[in-house]
Amino acid sequence: MSDIDIAQANEKNEMQPIAQVASAAGLQADEIEQYGPYKAKITFAAQKRLAQKPQGKLVLVTAINPTPAGEGKSTIVVGLGDALRKIGKKAVLALREPSLGPVMGMKGGATGGGYAQVVPMEDINLHFTGDMHALTCAVDTLAALIDNHMQQGNQLNLDPRRISWKRGLDINDRALRNIVIGMGGPYQGVPREDGFDITVASELMAVLCLASDLHDLKERIGRIVIGFSYDRKPVTVAQLGVTGAIAALLKDAAKPNLVQTLEHTPTIIHGGPFANIAHGCNSVLATRAALALGDIAVTEAGFGADLGAEKFMDIKAPVLGKTPDAVVIVATVRALKYNGGVPLKELGTENLAALRAGFANLNRHIDNMQHYGVPVVVAINAFTKDTDAEIKLVQELCAAKGVQAVNTTVWADGSAGGLELAQAVVTATEQPSTFKPLYALDTSLQDKLATIVQNVYGGSKVEFSHQASINLKVIKKNGWDKLPVCVAKTQYSFSDDATKLGAPTDFTIHVSEIVPKLGAGFLVVKTGAILTMPGLPKVPAAQNIDVDDDGVISGLF
Amino acid sequence: MSDIDIAQANEKNEMQPIAQVASAAGLQADEIEQYGPYKAKITFAAQKRLAQKPQGKLVLVTAINPTPAGEGKSTIVVGLGDALRKIGKKAVLALREPSLGPVMGMKGGATGGGYAQVVPMEDINLHFTGDMHALTCAVDTLAALIDNHMQQGNQLNLDPRRISWKRGLDINDRALRNIVIGMGGPYQGVPREDGFDITVASELMAVLCLASDLHDLKERIGRIVIGFSYDRKPVTVAQLGVTGAIAALLKDAAKPNLVQTLEHTPTIIHGGPFANIAHGCNSVLATRAALALGDIAVTEAGFGADLGAEKFMDIKAPVLGKTPDAVVIVATVRALKYNGGVPLKELGTENLAALRAGFANLNRHIDNMQHYGVPVVVAINAFTKDTDAEIKLVQELCAAKGVQAVNTTVWADGSAGGLELAQAVVTATEQPSTFKPLYALDTSLQDKLATIVQNVYGGSKVEFSHQASINLKVIKKNGWDKLPVCVAKTQYSFSDDATKLGAPTDFTIHVSEIVPKLGAGFLVVKTGAILTMPGLPKVPAAQNIDVDDDGVISGLF
Repeated sequence: MSDIDIAQANEKNEMQPIAQVASAAGLQADEIEQYGPYKAKITFAAQKRLAQKPQGKLVLVTAINPTPAGEGKSTIVVGLGDALRKIGKKAVLALREPSLGPVMGMKGGATGGGYAQVVPMEDINLHFTGDMHALTCAVDTLAALIDNHMQQGNQLNLDPRRISWKRGLDINDRALRNIVIGMGGPYQGVPREDGFDITVASELMAVLCLASDLHDLKERIGRIVIGFSYDRKPVTVAQLGVTGAIAALLKDAAKPNLVQTLEHTPTIIHGGPFANIAHGCNSVLATRAALALGDIAVTEAGFGADLGAEKFMDIKAPVLGKTPDAVVIVATVRALKYNGGVPLKELGTENLAALRAGFANLNRHIDNMQHYGVPVVVAINAFTKDTDAEIKLVQELCAAKGVQAVNTTVWADGSAGGLELAQAVVTATEQPSTFKPLYALDTSLQDKLATIVQNVYGGSKVEFSHQASINLKVIKKNGWDKLPVCVAKTQYSFSDDATKLGAPTDFTIHVSEIVPKLGAGFLVVKTGAILTMPGLPKVPAAQNIDVDDDGVISGLF
Repeated sequence: MSDIDIAQANEKNEMQPIAQVASAAGLQADEIEQYGPYKAKITFAAQKRLAQKPQGKLVLVTAINPTPAGEGKSTIVVGLGDALRKIGKKAVLALREPSLGPVMGMKGGATGGGYAQVVPMEDINLHFTGDMHALTCAVDTLAALIDNHMQQGNQLNLDPRRISWKRGLDINDRALRNIVIGMGGPYQGVPREDGFDITVASELMAVLCLASDLHDLKERIGRIVIGFSYDRKPVTVAQLGVTGAIAALLKDAAKPNLVQTLEHTPTIIHGGPFANIAHGCNSVLATRAALALGDIAVTEAGFGADLGAEKFMDIKAPVLGKTPDAVVIVATVRALKYNGGVPLKELGTENLAALRAGFANLNRHIDNMQHYGVPVVVAINAFTKDTDAEIKLVQELCAAKGVQAVNTTVWADGSAGGLELAQAVVTATEQPSTFKPLYALDTSLQDKLATIVQNVYGGSKVEFSHQASINLKVIKKNGWDKLPVCVAKTQYSFSDDATKLGAPTDFTIHVSEIVPKLGAGFLVVKTGAILTMPGLPKVPAAQNIDVDDDGVISGLF
């Protein structure tokens, strides 16, 4: 059975009304706004009340570098949450909202799999409560207001060649990466080069995810730099006078969404930046709500720990005001063997040598997480062809580093397949955690980047393109280089070369461009050939998706 | 007090839970999906049940040509609905969803005004239930799939110079009217000229509005022509193999939304095409639901009767399977004087001569509606500076045509200001209605267009541009010229010249382009300088909009 079949079979029989899930989680009846019977938004008033409550433990789930073999990080998050409930803990999940780019493209959704899923999965992966759409609308409304300003007299003296605000769509659309707009003569706008990013990479997504409340959301929107004037001064949204309008478009999107797992674990889904081209963490508001409602809040950060977890620790945690009490790193035997050089087709065969070689990838991620001073647990997401010897080898290699690696079967068994993991995670959260940040903010951008490259990625050098050097000068001139760094990099390798698997060393990271994001409060450092607008594959997943005459979705994955 | 102040003061004190509104309207508890406490969607199952019920009377509200003086058609619809309830009729309203283009630009929202408003007006005018956003997403996902197809081998042999599917955003953004996409080399798409329409002008909006159920929605999506192959054959969405995915994106948007007026009249808001650049009527599903739930369903069509009402009669009514039992034409003394040549600043002064001259505009709209064989009532939307003599003159001029003109004060007084209008409308619906269509479908496109221009607009000639002549050839060659005509034309004049007020005669309509819309099932005939992507004004309304720290919106209008 496919994920959607399992989800739909269970949804029909077993979903609880969301009011019941909310009540069980500790929310009052008037603290949610229902979106149909199984989805709700948590009101601003509820968030204010929850801010006064003591916080539970925080567990961050991350992973090795992703491979085509599949890792199943969301699946583990869901299974772990359900299992924690089974052993008597009040667990609450905080996840990211799926983007339609991967749903229509290749990767699929972000609601877990098998018997470890968040439901209603079709809704969450498609329209959900419209947050992503509202963000897209806000991104493009701001762009329209910028171009209109230039058309209507350009009082702010904006240089059309230096507009940094890009348009956005929640779609993989390579044809919109580089476009020319404003063609057709004097009544059709000011001609200029432009482009669309995927919405999840937009600064407004980061702003939504990092805002601590509506007031902070507005402050951050106002600080966004939309471009530069002809005299090279940065121009902000506040100067354009439309902070309120952009915030108003996000009024509903700013409220975290409540859903449930197949086993009714309350799950807060809110904000969905990618970790390769953005900061990769769900919203601070969602994680705070989970911490206030649960004994244990389980959250995730996108892609491998070099991207999502690093950004969680260095960008999100300071805003959240809370660091993880434990980190779970998800790995699969298959993915480790792939990292050890085994081709995709041969991953079903036992291969201990390759597994040992590929362990280098997991090994470095463990080191990196331990470096932050946080207890680490490894979750092995079991596949049917894993052999006992393979699982044992991973466990031994982890044990040698003082880390427990737990085999889990939550895809097939739900919470029953994650009880041991849950117990290990509880134990880990009870260990002392002495969080050390990776870098000090008051060092230069180059120093911060070098620290990430050398201490997290295992590389040796950083090279700046001509464009990046110019960006750097502008950043220094404006006093922005004390902001944290958000690296945009391929998710497939520690390096900026997607083909370098395992744990490459002695490589150079190539910086193509640096984009200051003052509203988000970080500097995006683009490396290698990373693009902030993905493309669709030759056979897009869209070709399989359907809806029947009664509104039932099929073919999602 | 502004409209938003009145709305918010009343919303807080008096809005009923939407479940109560739904129940009072005759919907069962499980037939709605709540979106917060005051908004809901009507399920597909409910629509199936309602389809079996007898239909109430249908009242279409239309207007004279709009002027900067303001007409208040939506205000009259709401006030009429409330007043019908007051005199014991079970009235249900069916309106269009507002577009963010005018909300952020100039015109404002579409929820009525004063004490004749639909609430929660901030929600409805901004994010609402996300329908407009979902449509935007579907429009642009289809575009991305088309460009990806060409990039990935182009099996359908699509000619990039002949892609007719345009991208869309629910924003006024002139800089996106004419763009070049796919720049940057072989990995960044196929370069071509492209452009964005405002979402409400997209064929997908028309498809949503004209679909009779999900099955029909999919059929219509599949029929959409996205462009032509190098050998000049039309290529459809069905051929691209993504009908299901596009329909899936509209699964929630396809369900009509239920809200209430300040006086709790059930109001179904669904679909929002503009009447100047699209067909201008809310969805067939919404109107059908209103007809099934009410003794009297009151609906509207956009802008003046030359645009919205004509398209209601000739495009929507045949699909709806029901023609109006009465038509209400909204006029104001101010707007008639403006049509009679009085400048905006002098409209506050009594001027019977100008009023008599400007009556020519209303006069022609009355003739046109009577030509369809439907009883007509004129609603005068009262402004404080109207004099008794002016109102009396309008009433006398209407009476001479056998039409009752009723002065209404619903903006200031709510239902109490519309009781006489309600009684007049009930009387009108009890008169015999013998609907005659304007044109026969099996005549040529030129004949249908000539009929509209001569019999509705009062013009004498139609001129086709070179581009339009080429379009016409393609349309004939493919056998599409038996479809109804959807004219895109300025809303300010019967002619295609916005400055020709009153009732111009002997003018030529200039056709710039003809776009076949096979999914919608009509041919869009663009005339004059009409654009399918509006622009923002020098001081956009966005600059006044704000949201406070508790999420309360201000400055909408």
